[in-house]
Amino acid sequence: MRSVVDDATLALLLEVTGTPKPGNVDRHRDHPDLRFEHFLAGSVGARSGLSLMIEGGPLGAAFERSVEGMADQRGGNTQFGALLLLAPLVRAANVDEVDGNEDGLSPAGVSDVVAATTVEDAVSFYRAFEHVDVAVEDPPEGLDDLDVRRGGDAAPALRERGLTLADVMDLSADVDGVAAEWVGGFERTFEAAGWLLDDDGPVPDRASRAFLRLLADEVDTFVVKTSSREAAEEATRRARAVLDGEEHGEELANELVERGINPGTTADLTAGALFVALRRGLEV
Amino acid sequence: MRSVVDDATLALLLEVTGTPKPGNVDRHRDHPDLRFEHFLAGSVGARSGLSLMIEGGPLGAAFERSVEGMADQRGGNTQFGALLLLAPLVRAANVDEVDGNEDGLSPAGVSDVVAATTVEDAVSFYRAFEHVDVAVEDPPEGLDDLDVRRGGDAAPALRERGLTLADVMDLSADVDGVAAEWVGGFERTFEAAGWLLDDDGPVPDRASRAFLRLLADEVDTFVVKTSSREAAEEATRRARAVLDGEEHGEELANELVERGINPGTTADLTAGALFVALRRGLEV
Repeated sequence: MRSVVDDATLALLLEVTGTPKPGNVDRHRDHPDLRFEHFLAGSVGARSGLSLMIEGGPLGAAFERSVEGMADQRGGNTQFGALLLLAPLVRAANVDEVDGNEDGLSPAGVSDVVAATTVEDAVSFYRAFEHVDVAVEDPPEGLDDLDVRRGGDAAPALRERGLTLADVMDLSADVDGVAAEWVGGFERTFEAAGWLLDDDGPVPDRASRAFLRLLADEVDTFVVKTSSREAAEEATRRARAVLDGEEHGEELANELVERGINPGTTADLTAGALFVALRRGLEV
Repeated sequence: MRSVVDDATLALLLEVTGTPKPGNVDRHRDHPDLRFEHFLAGSVGARSGLSLMIEGGPLGAAFERSVEGMADQRGGNTQFGALLLLAPLVRAANVDEVDGNEDGLSPAGVSDVVAATTVEDAVSFYRAFEHVDVAVEDPPEGLDDLDVRRGGDAAPALRERGLTLADVMDLSADVDGVAAEWVGGFERTFEAAGWLLDDDGPVPDRASRAFLRLLADEVDTFVVKTSSREAAEEATRRARAVLDGEEHGEELANELVERGINPGTTADLTAGALFVALRRGLEV
């Protein structure tokens, strides 16, 4: 009975509930000023933007609206990356729903949505940074006028260069795990959705295991930005140790939260994977 | 930015997150077959029914739809009572929103919604019991044809007697704490909303304290139905002891969950109070 938008909301809620997800806020852990209930309010507040994603209008504006609604709580940025990942997935899933076309929510279907983005979508994406503080890296050499921290002020530069939202994602795909999904057919998202569907037991437990596998496979770009590359490599190494039974997930979770090492991009991927899995029949 | 329906959803989520709420599923406790994630799915699944509540159509049909969506998860009944309590509150809050009339979400405004219910609303209420197993008591002597377990089969009896949904609530107000709110201007709901607004700290902590105060004030009718009157009186006495600092809330929560003593009606009232408080400016 749940709609596409309902499943997107539920994916955000199940993601933050999954525990342990070392370094993240989860059902059993808060960060000092970013708590579980901020993610609840973020999930619910994003609703009107998620609804716009399934309508025919500009995807960038829908994303901006979702971020604005998500930010209507006191914890700050809870799900910027997850919403950016969900935007094309939600739109593709709706094509699926409308046409009865099973290929909508697939690497090809989502890539079609990405390819259809416009320069105005890119402008809206930049505007979204005005609603909430998001951790970002400095832009590449010579691209200062495209610094996302400029928000809507970057519009002239975007228009002059004719950059679509897909182009913008392409520019940061090597330093941002969400952007990498946009340009790579959402490969890791779909792969992790498969893990969730093949796994057994309560969904939050599956989410925890999928998170650990994703983190063990690749360094988390959010940790690179907010902590360091060494910390990101350590988190990946130790996630692998948890999967190999050489380290305890609960203890690693406590330690990483204490050290402020937060694999947020891996959490975003987990949310996207949960959404795909829910649309493909994962039962809660 | 959140809509009336968004706040109703968030109220359901914040309720189940509040901890400790002795005997309930909460952020830190599950029941054997009824887990936290079932409440997440129930909250999200209820959305289409909550949306109908703010539209002009029959309130009973909206409630039935919310229950049907809520039940689309594997835990069984998560929020039947909370949705029954929310139905007139959500509709009254929407009057508020539409008319800019500050009195919509008030005891008088909600009582107007209750008074406007029809016989067909009562029929839909009965049909809602077909979607999920709800703990109920035997009907009063001579009212077997109005047993809610008959579901839609009770329609002829309801129509013959000309019973509106308000009349049906009146019949069980002395054995059901949610029905008592319907016929009594939602007195406890509004009172607890005031506690939430006057309290300090994270909202889930406030929800826990409001729950304990509600339970300390009156025996929980769900415990009377599913355990016994003695268990209900014990839960109330011990909630008071927690508030008086004579007993530890966390330990009581563990014990009541273990004994299967679940003050579900008090949780319903807490959800209703959270909704009212959110509409009145409670920030998350």
